[in-house]
Order: sequence, then structure tokens, then C-alpha cells
Amino acid sequence: MSKTRVAIVGASGYSGEELLRLLLHHPSVEVTCITSRQEAGRPVGAVFPRYMESSLKFSQPDIDDIAAKADVAFLALPHGLATEFAVPLLKRKLKVIDISADFRIHSPEIYAHYYKTAHPAPELLAQAVYGLPEVYRRQIKGASLIACPGCYPTSILLPIIPLLRAGLVEPDGITVVSMSGVSGAGRKVDAQYIFPECNESVRPYSVISHRHLPEIEQELALAAGCKQLAINFVPHLVPVNRGIHSCILLQANNSCNADTALECLHASYDFEPFVRILDQGQLADTKHVTMSNFCEIGCAFDPRNNRLIISSAIDNLTKGAAGQAVQNLNIIAGYPETAGLL
Amino acid sequence: MSKTRVAIVGASGYSGEELLRLLLHHPSVEVTCITSRQEAGRPVGAVFPRYMESSLKFSQPDIDDIAAKADVAFLALPHGLATEFAVPLLKRKLKVIDISADFRIHSPEIYAHYYKTAHPAPELLAQAVYGLPEVYRRQIKGASLIACPGCYPTSILLPIIPLLRAGLVEPDGITVVSMSGVSGAGRKVDAQYIFPECNESVRPYSVISHRHLPEIEQELALAAGCKQLAINFVPHLVPVNRGIHSCILLQANNSCNADTALECLHASYDFEPFVRILDQGQLADTKHVTMSNFCEIGCAFDPRNNRLIISSAIDNLTKGAAGQAVQNLNIIAGYPETAGLL
Amino acid sequence: MSKTRVAIVGASGYSGEELLRLLLHHPSVEVTCITSRQEAGRPVGAVFPRYMESSLKFSQPDIDDIAAKADVAFLALPHGLATEFAVPLLKRKLKVIDISADFRIHSPEIYAHYYKTAHPAPELLAQAVYGLPEVYRRQIKGASLIACPGCYPTSILLPIIPLLRAGLVEPDGITVVSMSGVSGAGRKVDAQYIFPECNESVRPYSVISHRHLPEIEQELALAAGCKQLAINFVPHLVPVNRGIHSCILLQANNSCNADTALECLHASYDFEPFVRILDQGQLADTKHVTMSNFCEIGCAFDPRNNRLIISSAIDNLTKGAAGQAVQNLNIIAGYPETAGLL
Amino acid sequence: MSKTRVAIVGASGYSGEELLRLLLHHPSVEVTCITSRQEAGRPVGAVFPRYMESSLKFSQPDIDDIAAKADVAFLALPHGLATEFAVPLLKRKLKVIDISADFRIHSPEIYAHYYKTAHPAPELLAQAVYGLPEVYRRQIKGASLIACPGCYPTSILLPIIPLLRAGLVEPDGITVVSMSGVSGAGRKVDAQYIFPECNESVRPYSVISHRHLPEIEQELALAAGCKQLAINFVPHLVPVNRGIHSCILLQANNSCNADTALECLHASYDFEPFVRILDQGQLADTKHVTMSNFCEIGCAFDPRNNRLIISSAIDNLTKGAAGQAVQNLNIIAGYPETAGLL
Repeated sequence: MSKTRVAIVGASGYSGEELLRLLLHHPSVEVTCITSRQEAGRPVGAVFPRYMESSLKFSQPDIDDIAAKADVAFLALPHGLATEFAVPLLKRKLKVIDISADFRIHSPEIYAHYYKTAHPAPELLAQAVYGLPEVYRRQIKGASLIACPGCYPTSILLPIIPLLRAGLVEPDGITVVSMSGVSGAGRKVDAQYIFPECNESVRPYSVISHRHLPEIEQELALAAGCKQLAINFVPHLVPVNRGIHSCILLQANNSCNADTALECLHASYDFEPFVRILDQGQLADTKHVTMSNFCEIGCAFDPRNNRLIISSAIDNLTKGAAGQAVQNLNIIAGYPETAGLL
Repeated sequence: MSKTRVAIVGASGYSGEELLRLLLHHPSVEVTCITSRQEAGRPVGAVFPRYMESSLKFSQPDIDDIAAKADVAFLALPHGLATEFAVPLLKRKLKVIDISADFRIHSPEIYAHYYKTAHPAPELLAQAVYGLPEVYRRQIKGASLIACPGCYPTSILLPIIPLLRAGLVEPDGITVVSMSGVSGAGRKVDAQYIFPECNESVRPYSVISHRHLPEIEQELALAAGCKQLAINFVPHLVPVNRGIHSCILLQANNSCNADTALECLHASYDFEPFVRILDQGQLADTKHVTMSNFCEIGCAFDPRNNRLIISSAIDNLTKGAAGQAVQNLNIIAGYPETAGLL
Repeated sequence: MSKTRVAIVGASGYSGEELLRLLLHHPSVEVTCITSRQEAGRPVGAVFPRYMESSLKFSQPDIDDIAAKADVAFLALPHGLATEFAVPLLKRKLKVIDISADFRIHSPEIYAHYYKTAHPAPELLAQAVYGLPEVYRRQIKGASLIACPGCYPTSILLPIIPLLRAGLVEPDGITVVSMSGVSGAGRKVDAQYIFPECNESVRPYSVISHRHLPEIEQELALAAGCKQLAINFVPHLVPVNRGIHSCILLQANNSCNADTALECLHASYDFEPFVRILDQGQLADTKHVTMSNFCEIGCAFDPRNNRLIISSAIDNLTKGAAGQAVQNLNIIAGYPETAGLL
Repeated sequence: MSKTRVAIVGASGYSGEELLRLLLHHPSVEVTCITSRQEAGRPVGAVFPRYMESSLKFSQPDIDDIAAKADVAFLALPHGLATEFAVPLLKRKLKVIDISADFRIHSPEIYAHYYKTAHPAPELLAQAVYGLPEVYRRQIKGASLIACPGCYPTSILLPIIPLLRAGLVEPDGITVVSMSGVSGAGRKVDAQYIFPECNESVRPYSVISHRHLPEIEQELALAAGCKQLAINFVPHLVPVNRGIHSCILLQANNSCNADTALECLHASYDFEPFVRILDQGQLADTKHVTMSNFCEIGCAFDPRNNRLIISSAIDNLTKGAAGQAVQNLNIIAGYPETAGLL
């Protein structure tokens, strides 16, 4: 089978770099184009010595060039900018796998509210598929435009969706407290992210306004079969490079406890290649999943107030971004879903 | 005024070391006795080069010796062992400031349930005062036996108690997700605490059974004026040396929002030397409080589900242990409450 | 070609775990036996959730069992203990790839001096080959017993040997200051390695007595063609999980400067798959090599005193231990040298 | 005695913040003016919540304002800019304690070579005193302009100068390999200093061109009584917030070994309040000195090649910058040298 030619648009950020790591060794992929405004003209090895053996060079992002060289374009760009590439690339019949937030949210109004700008291409929203393979695999298969979930949403949706669908937990009162490594902010050069400001620091941010919130609520409402739903989501920054840990508290229904919850999760995920359900008593640890495409999920139950307490861990750059994007490519292209990801 | 002679029993652990740091420079204290089974016979500077200028030597813990040398004994010992020293030292008329958990919980049954052992001196429980100065200052003044709160409880009780007392938030559904630095485990030599197991790792532990839970619930129930109360408390280990951050979610009553909550907190704490209420929109950061006796509290409100979201940060070894113990000494001895703590 | 059946003896330490990571996905290897006294009986996934998909179980180390199941045994054991396995396994015609220090040093006297114990099997020393492929590839090919170099030695020998052989630098006055991540100490549960003792700490150790010193000097003397040679080697512990950085200062001969040194290094390593020579002005960074089998080498020259200053970085667990062991397996078995390592 | 009124010019950087930490609690100092272009108009507590209790406000730096309010000005500014303030403030009879590099180097030519710009006020160089109290205490006493040493130089000069003066070690072949925490770069917002680029990374930088080099060589030459001298100095960045560790290798003369070296260091420093000489066999650790004004020095000797190996640790922001500046203030003002520093 001939290889899929892929472009990485925005290849010098952390998600772009992670795409490079995964795609350069993918058995069925040829990376033909990597773009970066900042690094254009430089060989990939000059920017990332780790890939010095590659002959790839960063180029200025150019639609014609990308369209000529690639069958699939991965967009690792800021929101807004991603749409500027997605629209023309789709017209030229490329498949687009977008890591930005541009096509995750169905409602342009909600997008406008959280992203403080009108959606740049609302007409595309209907055709975009939310790229969470464990939930939308069938739709992803035939999609041209895939909106890969955010890192927090991935860690949160995977454990909750099956429990909501099974009616084991209430859609009301969902509380999520998450902790993210600093690479989650991207390669952003900002005073708050320099080493001495993050090391030996634990702090929340964007407490009621985080941009991943609407995406989480949209998908949870769909799973619960309700029109809308409001959760509490409090993200924190902790001094690790990679990894997201989500602590999820759910109101269990009468029939639900740790056993039934684990049963439900096992039924949903035992045949999934990238979800690992821990035994009762075990709790997720980010260090078990870093540099991998796995989501690890642990479960405990407090019988005193019928609360299910879930711990969920992913690598924010892999299952939370680039790895999931590659998983989506594998689905589209008909490759084994784990190709290039183990 | 003559100085208070103090002993630090168990001075080679992290809380003991922090007591040393604070008490060696306290203007009204003379440290006359420091004990450590492990380091007995060694000068303090041989164990902690930072204090090489001191002529103190670790000694074997001995009741007679301590009673002869000190007016006040700080106990920085494991639970259970602390009682073995508290009982005879109280008999010899020393004041005892205990950093262990032995005298925090009023009910010996609950102690037995969480600590898996019968309480070693239940007859003392009635006389012990819970050493949270912002709540029990009056009782601390005349106390002989002070049970300093745990580190998690300190970070959790300070923000919640005034809100509960004021009836602004519900006693039901209190959810606390905390993150602690590794020194919180004490100087414990255990595989799970070696550097490569903690660094680049975020993980929960003791999810429904943490030993600080009963102490938190006891004090919250008292504040709420109810008999008992069950919260959800999920502690996490994060790779910092010092600092605890608690993310607290409270169901607000109709009259409560960020403004009223902040007003209530200001009214309670504006004259407190060690509680800092942040302006609306600001969130607590452990790096603002490390090496200090402060508790920093931030507040946000989600009007969609009437949830108050509080961020609270302390240094687990200072306000969460040794600093608070010194604050209690200052109250007992009639010193300015900030003596040795600024 | 049929797969090579391998055993990992001592698979629950950090080097053993890294062998697992590499060998479980090696295309030509079947891991048939993993031993651990501590974890015997437990599935690998119960100890390392990352490998939950594997059906391997830790077993008690047993010579008969290992010999029945494997063609090649990797020994990831403490020195001394490694010999107890190497001797009988060699008798049963297994190839032995030893990560311990037991067979690195040619002289049993020097071994005894540094390891404070008589060498347990001096008769095997002559047959052992020092497993640094870039130097001893030819000898490794036919060897039955391979002594993989220590982590510090790997980072130090690779840059210096070609320069010494070419006569570009003096064998006298070689100075090496190295910094190692804490996993270099192994999964050792010791007070000095708990998180708060290592984090926010930089410190030297074993300043003139490190056990890697004789191995470094032996190989440098061979490269210099002199009988013996004394270097200064000062190892430091720094708060990272993985990575060794060696700062090497060499007295250049008259004909040597950065250009000639780089030329010499390029000539030696341009066809090596795992050595990366940086351009002049670039310096090695451990984060470029972690989780990889690469050694990255940078070079600068101080014309004021003819000193060549070399920066060298490896991952202590990969090129410094398990990765190099797998590279040696590939050589022995006739596989591509990079198999399972990219 | 009336308090000294001090201004901190450039108070929002890391050195400025450390000056605040020390001076706000100095018993004989009143901080009357803190300037910051970036934070002008904001209360100090809005920028550093830790100092919320202070009523100080950042102001635009203004010579008239500073001169009206202060007797002594601390300059925590970039080189070049410091001179722009030093010149007019000296004219108005303020004492100037400069933390920048502007007045450390006697030769304007060497300054121009390393700082790539002509010295902005060479006429002041003769009157500046190098503010290393252990060496220049007498001169500091009467000085109006004090050039506080750099952080690396402080950690390097303190151990070497007495040994050179005593003739115990050779001025040739001095080799220093240092490791610095990231706060050493100042609060610089630059891609190379964001958390994920520093964490899990060990790397050298400015290998033969570091700007602290000429200052080190100048003072070592003076101590050795020679005209000039060229050392090798290789600084590294390691992932800690605070702390510098210098590993120093010196060629010992025939009469020198660890004993004589320690004797010499003890003779020089036993009466110094901020230098701690460790016993033989002990090595310096940055975690023993962070947040303190101490320099900790350990000593080992390799008899095989007569090399003295010294480990030296300071806190780069305290003894390496702000603490030493306060020590200098204490000398000028006739306060106890440890005032505000213990």
C-alpha cells in the first residue's frame, strides 16, 4: 500500500513537534511538508537536534505548496488561523486533521462567547467530526475535516461519557478539577511560563472561563441526552512538562458504585487500544501515560454521599493532541489504529 | 521578659526542621532541647549545615531531660508516639504543642476508625484545644495541650468556616481537591517518594480514606452547627517541595456570590495577621506563600450553578505545621502573634 | 528469521524497566522471561501499568528457568549478584549481556579496590568484551559475555577516545565534571534520594572514588596507548529524572582546535547511528537525547589556554544502560544495529 | 540610631524582589522608594502578593524622586542602564550599591570586549569598590559606589582567593564548572527559559564568553599577584529555581592537600559570618544555602594528580546578588554585618 503523504502546518510548536515525533516513524506515512513562519528555511534538525537525521526543512506555510505535497494536512495552529488553512485545503480535496479549537464546537454563538471572536467559517461546522475515536469512530472514518478534542476534554470525556450514557451518574453536579503540565500552554513565551514562575508553584487559572469548557459540556450533554448542562471545571498548572490529571466527581445513581462503574467502563473500553481501566483501589498517575497515547482511568466510590471519584490521566501532547490526531489519521486511512503509536 | 525555654521533640523530620528554622531566630524563645532517636549525639549543624552556627546537639528523647530544660514542648512525632510524650510532659506542667494527629479528633471512635488503632489517651481529648488560631484563639490562650491542625485541614478550614457560619454556603456537597508537595509525607524513606517516582508525576492518593478527613469534617460540622457532615476530599501529590493548594467547591445559597463571599472573608480575616484574601479574579498560588505562615485565599463564582470556587494556598510545613505551632506558642505566651514568623 | 528469545534478569529496577520498554517492541525479539525477587508472581502490568497489555509475569530468578526460556540473558542486577547469574548461564550456552559493573574492569585488583570486594569470577574477565559498540563493535560480534559500559563512562569515552587516538589532546590533565539525573542511582530507596532532598538541590558526590572512574581510566589509557592515566572526575546529582551531561576539559595539542576536533569526531562518528556531532557553537542538552539511544556531542575551544571544552549528553538509562545493551544484542544477533531503538 | 532610607531601583526583577524580601524586614532600614518602569503605579502587593501588607508602590524611576527619598540607592538594573542612574545619584551624594556589572571590571577595554559596548562612565571605575566583603571589607567601609560581584564570581572567588594568596595552588590551569538555577537569568521572558525548555534539561551555555569571566579572572589575578590569568569557566543551566554550585579544580602545590587547604580556608573564614567551611569528606549542596546569605565550601584532594577539588554553593539571588548588597549596606552604615540577613 502506498504511503499517505502528510503535511504538518505549524510544526515548530509543542503539538507540531509531537506530530513530528510520531509521524517520522509511522510505517505508512511520509511527511512531505512541515511549515513554520518562525523557522522557515531551517532544517528540522537545526531546530530539533533529535531529528537531525531527517532531511526535512521548515517552509513558509503556503496553500499551493501544501496541497501539492500532501494528501492529509495536520493543523497545529492557533484557533482562527487554523480555519484560514482548513478552508482552502478542504477545497483542494485534502483531508484536514485540526488540532486547534476551530471546529470542535457546534454552535458558532458559543464559540464566539468563549473565543471572543465570531467563528471564521460557521458553514464548515456541520461537516466537522469531533475526533474522539472511542466515541465517534464511525463518523471519523468518512470525514474530511476532523476536529481533534482539546487535552482537558479528552481526559474528562473518556471516563464520563459511558457512565452518563448508561445512566449510572447524574448529569447535574459534575465537578472536574484538572492539573496540567506546562507544555499544555504551548511553546508560549510569556512571563507566567518562565521556569522560576512555574517550578515550586501550584495554581489554578481560567477558573470559570476556560476555553475547553464549552467543548466538554457539549459532548457531555450529548451523552446525557439533554439539551445543555453546566459543569464546574477548574484547571490548574503544575510543574511537570507533560501530563494532565483530571479528578472527576460524579453523583452516582442508586444502582451505581465502584463495581458497576468499573463494569461499565470495562464494557466500553476493553476492546479499545488506548484506554486502560485500572483495578479498584488503583489510581491514575500521569507518569504511567507520558509519551504514550493511553488514557488511564481509576475509580473509587464514597458510599457516604454516593459520589464516584474518577482519576484520569493522559499525556496532553499525545492522547491530548498529536497522538489522537494520528489515531484519527489511522482511522481515515484504514491503517491499524495503533500504527505509529506503540 | 525572660525567654520561653522550648524543646523540639522529633527535631530531625521536616516539621521538626521547620520548627528549628523558626524558633532559632524567635526573639523570645530559647531552644534548649532537640531530640531525635536517629541523630542523637550529633550537633545540629552536622545534620542541617544551615544551622552550623548553633551549638545545639540532638539528644535521645527523655522525659526527665525535656522537663528539666523546657517550659514548652513541641511534639513533631508520628501519631501514637506523640501521646507517649504528651502524657508525662503535661503531668510535669509543661505546655504541649502537638503537631501530630493525636489530639485533633474529639471522638476516640473516629480516631480508631481512621488511624486503625485505639486512641492511646482518650481522657486527654477533652482538654486539648484545636490549634487553629483564627478560630480558637480564645481557647488556645489558656490551653496546656494544643493539637495543631493538619496541613490539608488548615488550607481547607480557613476559607470554608466563615462562609458556613454565615450561612452563605450549604454544608452538603462540599468538594475539596487538594495538591500537596512531597514534604507533606514527612522525611519518609519509601519507594513511592524517591525523586524519579514523584518528578513528572501527578497522582491522587488515599482518595476516600485520608486521615485528615475526619478532622476536616469535625470542624466543618461545628461551623455549620450540624451533627455531622460528609465531604469529598481528594488529595494529590505533585512535584513541588513545599506548598498545598486546595480547590474548594461550595454550593452557594441564594444570597451568595463572589462579592458576598469575599465580604464575609474580609470581615473574618482583615485583622488576622496570616490570612490574605485576594481580590476578585485573583487566584491563590503556592509560590506566594512558601516559607511563610500565610494562607492565601482567592474566590470565584459560577452563576450557572451557584457554585463558589475557592483557591487556598499555604506552605504545608509552615502554616500547615511548624509555623502554626509557633503562632500558638505566641498566643499562649502572650507574645505578639507574629513574633518569629515574619 | 526466527526471533531471539531473551530474558531480563532483574526487570523491576530502572534499567530493567527500560529494557522492557525497548525489548517489548523490538521487531526481532521475544521477551520470554522477566525476573524480580520483589515482584515475583505479579503480572508486568500490575507493576508497570504502561505494559498492562503484556501477558508477561515476573518470576523468581532461576537459572534453569532462564536457560530453558532464553537464548540471551540481560542482567540488570547489582554488581556481584550479576556474576552469580553470568557464570551458570554462560555454561548453558546463553549469551550474557551484563549491565552491571562486574565484567567492565580488566584488573581484578582495581575492581577489588573500587568495589571493596574480591572479584567473584576473575577467570571470566578475559573473555568479556566491553560493550561500547562505537569502539568494540568487531569484538562484540562474536562475544558471549558483554560488559555494557556505565552511564558516565559512555558519555565520557565517546567524545574523548577519538581525540586521544588521533593525538589531538593530551592524556594528562583530563577533567570531567558530570551531572546525572536521579534515576542514575537506580530504584534505590534511600533518604538522600527522596524527592525533597533532590529537588531544588545540586550537589557532587563520590568525588574521588566513584566506581565508574577505573572503567573510564582503563579505556582512556587504551586509547592513549599508555599504561595508565589519572583523570579528575566529579559527578553531580541534579534534579532531573533522566539524562547525564558531561563537561569535559582537554588539553589540546598544538595542531588542535575546535575545527580539527570536530573534523576528527565527524570522521569517527558520521557513520555511527547513535552519535550526533553538533556544529561549532552548539552545545549538548540532555533534553535532546532523553528516551533515545543517542549521544550528543558539542565542542568549543579556548585559544587562551588551548583547552578543548566538550559537552556530551546521553540518556543514562538508554545509551547509558538498556539502549546500549539492546544495541549490543543487535550486533551479536546480526540485526540492524538500530532495530528497536528508533 | 535613625534608619537608613533606601531606594530599590529596578525592584520588579528577581534581584529587586530579593532586595525587597530582605530590606522590608531589615531592622535599620526604611524602604522609601521602589521603581519599575513596567509596574509603575501598582502597589507592591499587587505584583508580589507576599508583600501585600506593605504600603509601598512602584514608581517610575526618577533621579530627583530617588534622591529626595533615599540615602542609599540599590541598583538592580541591566548593565549600561545602571550607570545612567549611578552617575547622577552619586552627584547628589547618595551611596550607590550596584548589582549590575557596570563597575566590577577595572579595565574599560575588557568591559567593552565582553559587554560589546564602550563603558558608559569609565571615569567612575577608579572610585568603585568591588563589593565582596570577605576580601574588600576595609575599602567598602568608606566607599560611595559599590559594585556587587556577580553570582558565579562570588561562588568561585571565595574559595579560591585564600588558597591563591597562600600560594597553596597554582594560578595556571584553574578550571571551574558551574551549575546555576534559572532565576540566574533574571525575570527574562525568552523562549529558552520557559518551563518545558528548562525542566528535565541540563545544558552549558556561554562556554568561553560568559560575562562573569573577566571579573573572575581580574580578582584571581590580583589574589595571585600576577598581571593576568586565564581560567576555564563553563556555566550550566539546571532546573532549580535558586542556587549556584561551582565545582572548582585547582593544581595544588607540593605542600598542599585537603588538610592544608581546609586549614587555610578556616583561617580565612572562621570569623566570617557568611562563609561555612565543611569538614573533610563533606560536599556543598545548594539546598543548604538557598534563601540564605551563606557560601558553603567543601574540599577534597586527589593525590594521584595533586588536584584540589572544591565544591562551593550559594543562593544566586542572596549571597550572589541582593544579600551581598545588603551585607555591603551594613558595612557602609556601620550596622552589624548580619543585620537583616539571618
